[in-house]
Amino acid sequence: MKTYLDCFPCFLKQALTAARKGTDDPIKIREVLNAVSSILTRISLTASPPEIGREVYKVVNEITGISDPFKRDKEECIDTANSLYPDIKEIVNLSEDRLLAAIRVAISGNVMDFGADPEFDLRSDLHTILDKDFSIFHYENFKEQLEKSEDILYLGDNAGETVFDRVLIEELSGKNIIYVVRDKPVINDAVFEDAVDSGIDRVAEIISSGCDAPGTILELCSSEFIERFKSADMIISKGQGNYESLSEQDKPIFYLLKTKCRIIARDIGVPVGSIILKSAAFK
Amino acid sequence: MKTYLDCFPCFLKQALTAARKGTDDPIKIREVLNAVSSILTRISLTASPPEIGREVYKVVNEITGISDPFKRDKEECIDTANSLYPDIKEIVNLSEDRLLAAIRVAISGNVMDFGADPEFDLRSDLHTILDKDFSIFHYENFKEQLEKSEDILYLGDNAGETVFDRVLIEELSGKNIIYVVRDKPVINDAVFEDAVDSGIDRVAEIISSGCDAPGTILELCSSEFIERFKSADMIISKGQGNYESLSEQDKPIFYLLKTKCRIIARDIGVPVGSIILKSAAFK
Repeated sequence: MKTYLDCFPCFLKQALTAARKGTDDPIKIREVLNAVSSILTRISLTASPPEIGREVYKVVNEITGISDPFKRDKEECIDTANSLYPDIKEIVNLSEDRLLAAIRVAISGNVMDFGADPEFDLRSDLHTILDKDFSIFHYENFKEQLEKSEDILYLGDNAGETVFDRVLIEELSGKNIIYVVRDKPVINDAVFEDAVDSGIDRVAEIISSGCDAPGTILELCSSEFIERFKSADMIISKGQGNYESLSEQDKPIFYLLKTKCRIIARDIGVPVGSIILKSAAFK
Repeated sequence: MKTYLDCFPCFLKQALTAARKGTDDPIKIREVLNAVSSILTRISLTASPPEIGREVYKVVNEITGISDPFKRDKEECIDTANSLYPDIKEIVNLSEDRLLAAIRVAISGNVMDFGADPEFDLRSDLHTILDKDFSIFHYENFKEQLEKSEDILYLGDNAGETVFDRVLIEELSGKNIIYVVRDKPVINDAVFEDAVDSGIDRVAEIISSGCDAPGTILELCSSEFIERFKSADMIISKGQGNYESLSEQDKPIFYLLKTKCRIIARDIGVPVGSIILKSAAFK
């Protein structure tokens, strides 16, 4: 997905949130906004939003001197999610269709997004999503692809959401699951340590994409990741950032996400707040 | 009220909305965003938001070549408001406290604000506001001041809201009312012609503030206005922009507004979406 002009104010807003997480110094925060304003004047609209996001968050880290401004938020999200694990597992256990229930659970974890909405309310949002109808529901295609797949690449998104992903991965038993995390901290996206703290290491192999953007920009990924991406039988892609960076790809990708942003929602053709299980085969 | 860093993304968003009203040319729209991004790097935070807003909207007009991008929106708002006039008049006629009902009506018209929320829904917002409790309610002080006042300066805000102001002015009979409009079009703020189209000329003298900002910045107002401002016994100030630019003034001002912006709401100390009747005597 390309970057829209509507993304510009959002980049500035995200930079402000991240800068304030990193420092209390108003001079530095202003410096961040000035640097990001300057980035905005020269970005190409053919780049995907995570490519710009990468630049924006890099500037925040450089100016504040903090490499992981959302560290505490990520830890809190993982702790909360781990404490919810028995409850979300029970939802799957009590359901008639375990796989579908686990997909719902995994998508509901996608609310923990400090880029799109730092004000999210995990517990109340969770129940809204669990009860909500899908706006795009390529479940039959998902099951068909799953049936014939051995190697599955699971592209993680946010820290904490990882625990919800674990519940879905546990329903994919018998498959070879590779769980992919960001290479370095960016917003509250999950890195290796976050996936381990969420128990993903017990159910999947964890690898880094090699990319430090809030998405999966293939040009910036490691050759190890690219090999796995090419050879995977099926790719499960979580969240907006992965969608934004991969939506032009022609692979057996299934996007699982909540549309939190108006522009992404419009790109997909659904309202904001929608629940999506979308096959890349249907453009 | 000073400008906060949180206002920066909002200026960019407002510039985008205004630029799109003025032109379909993506190159020009991008040029507007670049120019506004550049303004953001050099603005002083001691300026009030309407001072920055003035610069921002000036740039939009210069680059798009359109001096009144919200002209059609303003006309539509006035037409809708005029068509609602009998209904809102009836609300006052049926009420036990006509003045209070008219104040409520006048505040409800403040939803027509393309700067704060271009997605407003007049009819549904109207009824929400008419039924809502005031978050700040200096009504006794308002009545006391009114009682002893002869010359009242009424600072208008948005086109269309003007019709709702007329209903309040009609309840202030016996007083000498001067209705103040912006000097030139900025956002959907009312200028002379808009006030006339709303029937204000039948109930008050209409003057320009001399200022072309979306607020009343005294340093930019005409000497004629300043004289009236100084000599007025009471000032009724509508909307956020007038509040932002006058909140430090020590005059018998009463602010009537809906808080549509998080930052202004915080400055006043109330939640977003609040209904305010505030005396400047209480800081």
